[in-house]
Amino acid sequence: MSPEEFINYLSKNYHVNFDNVDLLKEALTQRNYLNEHPKEKGRDYQRLEFLGDAIMQASVTEYLFKRYPDWDEGQLTEMRITMVQTKSFAHFSQVIHLNEAIRLGKGEEMNGARHRPSLLEDIWEAFIGALFLDQGQQAVVKLLNQTVFAAIDENFFDQFIDFKSRLQEQLQAKGTVDITYNIEDEERNEDNSQVFKVSVALDGRILAYGFGSSIKDAEKAAAQQALVDLSE
Amino acid sequence: MSPEEFINYLSKNYHVNFDNVDLLKEALTQRNYLNEHPKEKGRDYQRLEFLGDAIMQASVTEYLFKRYPDWDEGQLTEMRITMVQTKSFAHFSQVIHLNEAIRLGKGEEMNGARHRPSLLEDIWEAFIGALFLDQGQQAVVKLLNQTVFAAIDENFFDQFIDFKSRLQEQLQAKGTVDITYNIEDEERNEDNSQVFKVSVALDGRILAYGFGSSIKDAEKAAAQQALVDLSE
Repeated sequence: MSPEEFINYLSKNYHVNFDNVDLLKEALTQRNYLNEHPKEKGRDYQRLEFLGDAIMQASVTEYLFKRYPDWDEGQLTEMRITMVQTKSFAHFSQVIHLNEAIRLGKGEEMNGARHRPSLLEDIWEAFIGALFLDQGQQAVVKLLNQTVFAAIDENFFDQFIDFKSRLQEQLQAKGTVDITYNIEDEERNEDNSQVFKVSVALDGRILAYGFGSSIKDAEKAAAQQALVDLSE
Repeated sequence: MSPEEFINYLSKNYHVNFDNVDLLKEALTQRNYLNEHPKEKGRDYQRLEFLGDAIMQASVTEYLFKRYPDWDEGQLTEMRITMVQTKSFAHFSQVIHLNEAIRLGKGEEMNGARHRPSLLEDIWEAFIGALFLDQGQQAVVKLLNQTVFAAIDENFFDQFIDFKSRLQEQLQAKGTVDITYNIEDEERNEDNSQVFKVSVALDGRILAYGFGSSIKDAEKAAAQQALVDLSE
């Protein structure tokens, strides 16, 4: 996808405009690409990444602050760490097809850089920096409302949260405790996939159950359910 | 100074308004104050600090990005670290007399918390978060233009920069070098204060001279002068 095609894609699918093509090119250009195209003017994405990193941090912070008026600064910080991280930004780079528009050096292309999470994170931040300069903070929020912020309601960030550690921390706050996970049931679907049922118990008393296609997932689900029950 | 008096001070001296007194009180309230005033409703400053920290980071980032179009991300990052730090924010808290309006617990007051840099940094960030919510980003920039950003032109942040390390890094980039500082002269003023003249030399060849009221300050000034000469 060329930068111009990406601008069309963005306008059509997210109703977000982008005017300055040179600025977008800068956000999409990796250093090695410039080395291989000496006639190309302009810079690589790193200055825009410096800007976009701070814009993302502030945008997510403002959103969480206003969305969760009852959360204290510890809860807000934890949620922000979950949202502002490599895996998250790499995912959203692919969601909006930003990865297809990166201008990569040939060697980097061969090495699979187009799918490398650290590059996809950088490009996401650089693009947000460019969007901020080109269209302002409101356009950034408009795009985030349809991507990063919408993902909260889809429980997208749950996969990055270690619910078992969180349950342990919460229960241990009152003293030493014995937390155990037990497989209660294991079923095989018609397509041969498995479903595990796992219980989590505190000092021998079952707190909650969880289901999952692996024991690990079922344990995580049980811990998450126990946390929900405890917070009620 | 009461929160109301601080609002007047801010309006008179910085032409920055603030409407919501309860929000300002929250930004100025330390946890122990609430413990000692159980009838007082509202929170301590920590949620607003979470917000203001990100707003400061983004505001300084945008300012540096636009002010220094020729700097690369390394130079920008270094300058941001110098500006966004405890000593810096503690200083500006005192400049705008924010420290006089903090609502402190008695024990903390006795312990000198009103002059503790870490508290002054927190309060600066909390106040910026409150100003952002109350008046928007433009008001934040208006205040920063008169304080933190203006201080760049007054070379305020130079005191936080380790010019000797920076000179060493720059010279060593080309290989091992021998950098020496020598006291060239020492004079005593009429008021008995001293002035040192120090030279900095690279492999025995003098690069620059510096003056200062201590040997340390004179060395720093010499390194700074050498960096200026090298960059020309």
